[in-house]
Amino acid sequence: MATALLFGVSAMAQQALWGRAAVKSPEINPDHSVTFRLYAPKAIKVEVTGDFLPTQKIQTPFGEFDGPGYAELKEGKDGIWEYTTDGPVAPEFYNYTFRVDGQSMVDPSNVYINRDVSSLTSILLVDGDPIIDLFKVCDVPHGTVSKIWYHSDHEGIDRRMTVYTPAGYETSGKKYPVLYLLHGIGGDEEAWYTQGRASQILDNLIAQGKAEPMIVVMTNGNISQHAAPGEGPEGMKSPNMQLPKTMEGTFETCFPEIVRFIDKTYRTKAQKQFRAIAGLSMGGFHSCHISKQYPTMFNYVGLFSAAISRENPGETDIYKDFDQKLATQFAPKNRPALYYIAIGKTDFLYQDNQNLRQKMDANGYPYVYVETEGGHIWRNWRFYLADFCPRLFK
Amino acid sequence: MATALLFGVSAMAQQALWGRAAVKSPEINPDHSVTFRLYAPKAIKVEVTGDFLPTQKIQTPFGEFDGPGYAELKEGKDGIWEYTTDGPVAPEFYNYTFRVDGQSMVDPSNVYINRDVSSLTSILLVDGDPIIDLFKVCDVPHGTVSKIWYHSDHEGIDRRMTVYTPAGYETSGKKYPVLYLLHGIGGDEEAWYTQGRASQILDNLIAQGKAEPMIVVMTNGNISQHAAPGEGPEGMKSPNMQLPKTMEGTFETCFPEIVRFIDKTYRTKAQKQFRAIAGLSMGGFHSCHISKQYPTMFNYVGLFSAAISRENPGETDIYKDFDQKLATQFAPKNRPALYYIAIGKTDFLYQDNQNLRQKMDANGYPYVYVETEGGHIWRNWRFYLADFCPRLFK
Repeated sequence: MATALLFGVSAMAQQALWGRAAVKSPEINPDHSVTFRLYAPKAIKVEVTGDFLPTQKIQTPFGEFDGPGYAELKEGKDGIWEYTTDGPVAPEFYNYTFRVDGQSMVDPSNVYINRDVSSLTSILLVDGDPIIDLFKVCDVPHGTVSKIWYHSDHEGIDRRMTVYTPAGYETSGKKYPVLYLLHGIGGDEEAWYTQGRASQILDNLIAQGKAEPMIVVMTNGNISQHAAPGEGPEGMKSPNMQLPKTMEGTFETCFPEIVRFIDKTYRTKAQKQFRAIAGLSMGGFHSCHISKQYPTMFNYVGLFSAAISRENPGETDIYKDFDQKLATQFAPKNRPALYYIAIGKTDFLYQDNQNLRQKMDANGYPYVYVETEGGHIWRNWRFYLADFCPRLFK
Repeated sequence: MATALLFGVSAMAQQALWGRAAVKSPEINPDHSVTFRLYAPKAIKVEVTGDFLPTQKIQTPFGEFDGPGYAELKEGKDGIWEYTTDGPVAPEFYNYTFRVDGQSMVDPSNVYINRDVSSLTSILLVDGDPIIDLFKVCDVPHGTVSKIWYHSDHEGIDRRMTVYTPAGYETSGKKYPVLYLLHGIGGDEEAWYTQGRASQILDNLIAQGKAEPMIVVMTNGNISQHAAPGEGPEGMKSPNMQLPKTMEGTFETCFPEIVRFIDKTYRTKAQKQFRAIAGLSMGGFHSCHISKQYPTMFNYVGLFSAAISRENPGETDIYKDFDQKLATQFAPKNRPALYYIAIGKTDFLYQDNQNLRQKMDANGYPYVYVETEGGHIWRNWRFYLADFCPRLFK
């Protein structure tokens, strides 16, 4: 009892030290409305912003954009501010922050945090929809998620990736197909694992019998970077959107060394028919160029909101002869079993993707096209992954 | 160029959406002082608290405790508040938060966050000391860190653990010794990986030739819990310090199923002479009881600030006959190659550890004793791990 008490005291003391507010936030109410609370006794104005609120126009030096709206919290007793949504919130995996007198902050009562480049947001998962429930950790067999390093001979540095191996991999003795899953600009090898909910989506689809057990390799597509911010020898610098060598061909050119590393390190089915590559935004751009540069490597290609407008953006020759390389990729002996193009109706890359479709159509290259509501957002990319995986390796 | 511009816009818009303050914080200055900054144009009082500041007495309902002090930031122009430490800050891996008019918050300019139970803190690593530099990601070969699930037959649930395998494990074909590394109360399978910097410490010690390449198994010692908060089917609930079944014997009783899982799943040297167990606080308590309950299982035992005062705290019989079981553990045929006891001078468990030492001394049981400054804090536990590992498997 004495020690139990001491631990209790230690916990109490710790809470006192770090000053955690004893308010519950967020709270999902029985009617699926959500209440947000913040202890801020001296604040003048407290707002919440998140992608559960109706969008509003945001003015930037580069033009007008749709952004999430703001809602004001009202001050109640004891310095606790509160806001309840106007009715139920649709099932989704949301991000939100508070703004207190102009200062943005994560919700101090919510330990679940997401980092996107250099922004922190609090996480809110509202369940109750079959697609959204794929993003939850369910009571199903779980794959293993590993942070593993490979040596890039091309770059002369060690680099980190995230690898998902399906439940049972360690002891099954079997070989598995591989999906290479690529992030967007500003992202890294953590992006699909954290915001993308890739391991939850795979666990759940496999458990439901909807996807084949597969290895998923989440690379770091910023070839000059060892690892995600804080995880490499660069140290704990502030993350930078403008990294060198992201879309100039190096990553695509030396991608085969990643495939060789995976085939050497994991029990893979190391043939084209068992390999897929997909990515979002810059990762869709990478997937497009890698798959046409190496037309005998991937049998399944997924472009999720792909940034495929740059036809000759870099120094290397990987972007040259786009049409000719695409023709080679779609020649009968190379033609992928699936070429999947998905884009949101309000995505700023919408027209670029329509242009690619026109080119494909004009040449009779088959592909699957998925169009969703919304823009260049994770909500779409999680959905595309959940929609793409069941089509693989069948 | 068009797409590059659009990405820039997207990034700008995103920053505008989430309202990130464009201040640099923390900033380590050339003289190793540290400057903290916060944009808070309407705040009345802004403070920073962290373990780099001199401690101050904190009053709680349970008594007086040493906690980190607070320092006030001064408001400068454009609503940016600033504080620079009074001279250089000693090398260490620090936690800190801001307090704005009474509301605690992480530093919105610093994406590096730590969660300890239900508290979030910002991270500051000041390097320049050989021990502290072990906590950094250095340009050395890196082991793999995996989140892997095992089935607990005893509890009938799948449970998650963190496993470090040393650089080269995947392709070496060799077998490795295993250190089981246990967290404290309120912690989970993430604690040693995040706050404990275990993978960095092991990478660096192995690269320096100071520690043998070993597998490190970081279990979740809260036996009723599937996984760390947010990572299990319990969902994104607020973390709870008071979990059921943490120190009542179940975890210790069924620990052999973890060892069997590891020996089945990894290439281990599956004999006592190649097994170590260590833990901090509750994990030291667990390590003490597991190692004496199964005296033929572990050859190296580490008690880091161990909570070993409870002699018969639970329902099961694992805590019974302490003296007799210790005698069996230290009988010549079982005697561990190393029994390591480490404690800080101001730890609230100091006297309990001295009592254990007296018992060991009275019976002539050999052990290594390490006493440090400070109390029941991660600074000590990281140091103990760095001091303990080089003594293993030699």
